[in-house]
Amino acid sequence: MPNIYVALTHYPVVDKRGDIITSAITNLDLHDISRVVKTYGVNAFYVVTPLTDQQELIGKIISHWTNGYGAEYNPTRRNALEQIRVAETIADAGRDIAATEGVYPKLTVTSARHYPSSVGYEKYRSIIKTGNPHLLIFGTAWGLAESIINEANYILEPISGLTDYNHLSVRCAAGIILDRLMGTR
Amino acid sequence: MPNIYVALTHYPVVDKRGDIITSAITNLDLHDISRVVKTYGVNAFYVVTPLTDQQELIGKIISHWTNGYGAEYNPTRRNALEQIRVAETIADAGRDIAATEGVYPKLTVTSARHYPSSVGYEKYRSIIKTGNPHLLIFGTAWGLAESIINEANYILEPISGLTDYNHLSVRCAAGIILDRLMGTR
Repeated sequence: MPNIYVALTHYPVVDKRGDIITSAITNLDLHDISRVVKTYGVNAFYVVTPLTDQQELIGKIISHWTNGYGAEYNPTRRNALEQIRVAETIADAGRDIAATEGVYPKLTVTSARHYPSSVGYEKYRSIIKTGNPHLLIFGTAWGLAESIINEANYILEPISGLTDYNHLSVRCAAGIILDRLMGTR
Repeated sequence: MPNIYVALTHYPVVDKRGDIITSAITNLDLHDISRVVKTYGVNAFYVVTPLTDQQELIGKIISHWTNGYGAEYNPTRRNALEQIRVAETIADAGRDIAATEGVYPKLTVTSARHYPSSVGYEKYRSIIKTGNPHLLIFGTAWGLAESIINEANYILEPISGLTDYNHLSVRCAAGIILDRLMGTR
């Protein structure tokens, strides 16, 4: 069985001009990606932001659906959102995983760009079959900062359809990539 | 080449209790699914609602990103949203496609439930290879009304991951299904 963790990163990411920014939490990112994570049996979903007020906002969103009225109204959302863990940095998420697994996870980044070292899906499926922990990292805004991409153990190939348009939302990209890696057909 | 159209349906769909309702437009459904549609080379994206005020809202969202500031700020959103066509009913979308194609499309519904006649992805990939037009229909809220499912030519298998949790957002489901049908790996 693959042993996958997912991180959604709000810092360091780039804006339209390529400058490093901290992006804001998007409510539907948390809902959609936690449902994807639950569907494909991912171990946990780290939402990465260094901003305290944003961390508090994540807590409020989770709490709405895991306690009281929201949990009663829609238990399937509770089951999904319960898998969210807040982390200040990607390294913190990695250390949290290491505390459970006894080994630091391999870091795998996703990108809409092709790199010389990008790994295809079939090859990466065979790599994760070993059962070693992997943290699959998604960026928000205009994508992950180069510093994160340079430090990664693996870079996944961009998703390609039948056109050269590659501007999927991170919600859809996370769904498609997890399905490519762990979907049953 | 597959010859696919996509419809996102707001009526008739069911609520939590199974009653027929008209659901409200969700802004991010339009953005995310039009970007998926653009990525995989789908011909057009029909947003189906019989409510006039909701049709006007769709027009406003498209207009914001296809004219003026929005189009200039982010042309990739314009390219995606330009593919949206508003339809009052699924049958109207079908007639609109027939006007272009010279033949009424096959209607294919998606569902989180398995039906005795559900078709798997590999089989459906071979069916659409013929190039005949197909309208792939997604529901909002708690899914398409049974009347729509009963009238369809094909019912696609639900998406299965490594668990029995099957509560994906329609945004993610559309991405995953189009990738299964038309993605290149």
